[in-house]
Amino acid sequence: MNHFLDISSVDNLQAWMPEIASLKKEPLQYAALGKGKTLGMLFFNSSLRTRLSTQKAAQNLGMQTMIMNVQEDAWGLSFEDGVVMNTSSAEHIKEAAAVLSGYCDALAVRAFPSLTDKAADMQERILNGFKKYATVPIVNMESAMGHPLQGLTDAFTIWEQQKTERPKVVLSWAPHIKPLPQSVPNSFVLAMQAMPVDLVICNPVGYNLNPDLVGDTPVIHDQEAAFAGADFVYAKSWSAFEPYGTLPMVKGNWQIDQHKMKLTNQAKFMHCLPVRRNVVVSDAVLDSEASIVISQAHNRTYSAQLVIQKLLKHGME
Amino acid sequence: MNHFLDISSVDNLQAWMPEIASLKKEPLQYAALGKGKTLGMLFFNSSLRTRLSTQKAAQNLGMQTMIMNVQEDAWGLSFEDGVVMNTSSAEHIKEAAAVLSGYCDALAVRAFPSLTDKAADMQERILNGFKKYATVPIVNMESAMGHPLQGLTDAFTIWEQQKTERPKVVLSWAPHIKPLPQSVPNSFVLAMQAMPVDLVICNPVGYNLNPDLVGDTPVIHDQEAAFAGADFVYAKSWSAFEPYGTLPMVKGNWQIDQHKMKLTNQAKFMHCLPVRRNVVVSDAVLDSEASIVISQAHNRTYSAQLVIQKLLKHGME
Amino acid sequence: MNHFLDISSVDNLQAWMPEIASLKKEPLQYAALGKGKTLGMLFFNSSLRTRLSTQKAAQNLGMQTMIMNVQEDAWGLSFEDGVVMNTSSAEHIKEAAAVLSGYCDALAVRAFPSLTDKAADMQERILNGFKKYATVPIVNMESAMGHPLQGLTDAFTIWEQQKTERPKVVLSWAPHIKPLPQSVPNSFVLAMQAMPVDLVICNPVGYNLNPDLVGDTPVIHDQEAAFAGADFVYAKSWSAFEPYGTLPMVKGNWQIDQHKMKLTNQAKFMHCLPVRRNVVVSDAVLDSEASIVISQAHNRTYSAQLVIQKLLKHGME
Repeated sequence: MNHFLDISSVDNLQAWMPEIASLKKEPLQYAALGKGKTLGMLFFNSSLRTRLSTQKAAQNLGMQTMIMNVQEDAWGLSFEDGVVMNTSSAEHIKEAAAVLSGYCDALAVRAFPSLTDKAADMQERILNGFKKYATVPIVNMESAMGHPLQGLTDAFTIWEQQKTERPKVVLSWAPHIKPLPQSVPNSFVLAMQAMPVDLVICNPVGYNLNPDLVGDTPVIHDQEAAFAGADFVYAKSWSAFEPYGTLPMVKGNWQIDQHKMKLTNQAKFMHCLPVRRNVVVSDAVLDSEASIVISQAHNRTYSAQLVIQKLLKHGME
Repeated sequence: MNHFLDISSVDNLQAWMPEIASLKKEPLQYAALGKGKTLGMLFFNSSLRTRLSTQKAAQNLGMQTMIMNVQEDAWGLSFEDGVVMNTSSAEHIKEAAAVLSGYCDALAVRAFPSLTDKAADMQERILNGFKKYATVPIVNMESAMGHPLQGLTDAFTIWEQQKTERPKVVLSWAPHIKPLPQSVPNSFVLAMQAMPVDLVICNPVGYNLNPDLVGDTPVIHDQEAAFAGADFVYAKSWSAFEPYGTLPMVKGNWQIDQHKMKLTNQAKFMHCLPVRRNVVVSDAVLDSEASIVISQAHNRTYSAQLVIQKLLKHGME
Repeated sequence: MNHFLDISSVDNLQAWMPEIASLKKEPLQYAALGKGKTLGMLFFNSSLRTRLSTQKAAQNLGMQTMIMNVQEDAWGLSFEDGVVMNTSSAEHIKEAAAVLSGYCDALAVRAFPSLTDKAADMQERILNGFKKYATVPIVNMESAMGHPLQGLTDAFTIWEQQKTERPKVVLSWAPHIKPLPQSVPNSFVLAMQAMPVDLVICNPVGYNLNPDLVGDTPVIHDQEAAFAGADFVYAKSWSAFEPYGTLPMVKGNWQIDQHKMKLTNQAKFMHCLPVRRNVVVSDAVLDSEASIVISQAHNRTYSAQLVIQKLLKHGME
């Protein structure tokens, strides 16, 4: 693995699960690995969980971290070849990525989608720009179309908590007050497709995710039918893939509540957080013992730690 | 001690004084204590001294620090039970505090008062929200109604510099250009009440601090009378407790100057800083040998260090 | 050396070159020197390269770093003696510098010029304020009139790459979309004047740098004539010294392109970055093998490391 850009960067996701479990048990077991090494963390968008868990992961590995909060207008980057840089962008990705590679042993990048220009978002120009011009490993801390650190954590959390050999996992769309990216559900789908689970996606008509990514995974529009027999319910809101970034009218109430959870096989409730209470999910569900959202968030540290550790080791070989 | 929320979190303030002195003498004596541990620092408001001294304190203990500058509008928190989160708040304190507890071994929080809603300010909902829902120790880095790290430092600075067994300490209100919180004078009063000193508060009519907190401490409205025989003069501006947050008309000149300092027993001049020169206090006083404000600010590191050290040790037991 | 304020703070610049080379070869050779020590980094203006390379330098020396992004309006400083601080400034440089000296073992400061008030800019009141009132060494991370960490790096990069005993170095003005400070060219000129090179400055009429600083260094207004036989071409845009901060009309095209580079002695192309492609320099030059801008940027770490190391050692003597 040269970079961690997407779930598909991982060749054998299942094999990573016991390794994450080992780091969770003894977080400091590789504290000597990162000595004298630095993780650069670039935030084109704000972050809480990803920032802290990734920083903690690096610290557990003995690395230093250097954080840059990049405000796009303050330090506008150019991406096009041959551009005449006579407007607001002060630096080209070619120089930025190459220079940062001299100060950092790995670069973690967070850059959200526009949700207005599908083609541009699918190009992942910030993430791919760093991949192209940096000379150190790149870690995706959530890009336009994926959040693989979250997907990895989600796979581990299910693996850690599953009680059956092949659990039924339901990814359910949920309401929100504004259009949200598809990055988290995308990476969740990819992660589940690589794990021994039965994944079902349920979302309102008009909210189907990118069909190339969904592939054979069943998609149904009846939330209650989907919940039947589920071992895990993963709630997340997202905006439409087509027309891109919109919020088509939704029929019925898609909030996750106790009535719906009772249709499941005593399913665990998951969400990547932050979560809007009584919009996405009811208090009763989130405060129940079925909710494993906090444990899921805490697992972010160990997932990120394994990713960085593998990149460091690879870089050192 | 499970948390450091207020001066009253300390059961025996006097006993802490030689411990702080010991840390000041050898700041790195417990550099192994915090190995692999992380202090999360949450700033809902800006900070200079508190940020740096607390960060330095953690570093002296061998801890890592992770700093979050929380802009309330950017990452609005909900605090109410049962709230439907369909407005600007993206996360409930329940999740925020629980998640952060998984990344940090202690959480330090700074959250100023509104100065418009007394009941809300006295509730300390941010600080108490973290206390309620976090599973790690909480350190108050200045809240609506208290600044105990400052009060602890002030007690130590007086203890360190006192020349008599029971010094006379005067807390004097001073002018400012805008309404300021009561957090610093509140914690100073509480700290002095727990120390072997004779405390007198002097402030203009209309500026009495919370009477429940002041208790038996003498409050006089004649600044010159108060200064007579003082060993320490502690200057600070604050807004009225009743009507809350206002600046009632003040008679006379309350700026601390050389004329007033000459009424004292060669008193040392103290202030928590930042201080507005020639508004709160004259250049002549601040630049005189009687001024110990820099030493007082430097002591912040060792006071914070003792607090974190005790919380870490407690958490490790 | 008590402070690193300008290139003239270095008594023998040539002697520093092999020391920087040694740090570049083994960056962690003095990792024990900074143990328990802290570098405070104050940014009155934004920074990428300087921030990261200086932070990395401190980390390589085993130091902690504490970063403050000072927004002038948020934490306005007063500088005048005797000022009545009843406006926006909340703290005087006297207190700020003295307090920070208690938390940090050295202070690095970045404060750009106004480009509107020459006298104020030449006073360097922020940098000199810290020098005057701090009790620890001060490092200039780019001030109104100088950027000596850049000049030091530039000298090292030329020393490292030169193929002749006494290379011809051309500092060439280049176009930009807005008025830029003279700090980088000023420090470059001072650094080159202290090294065994033949320096020529070429800039349009009206763009001569401060004559006191330029001294005997030849200044010509014909860019192509200047490039003839050059071993190094250092491009940089700057605004006029007189009338200060303006952009007088420029005749001809001053962008560095392949045609002009062919006039040189296969010169290396240098720039401090960030650089505006196809405004300052053409893609063809920047992407050619002659361009050493990335290596130049990477050298920032080791130059800063030597500066901090010398200040630490001096402070420890």
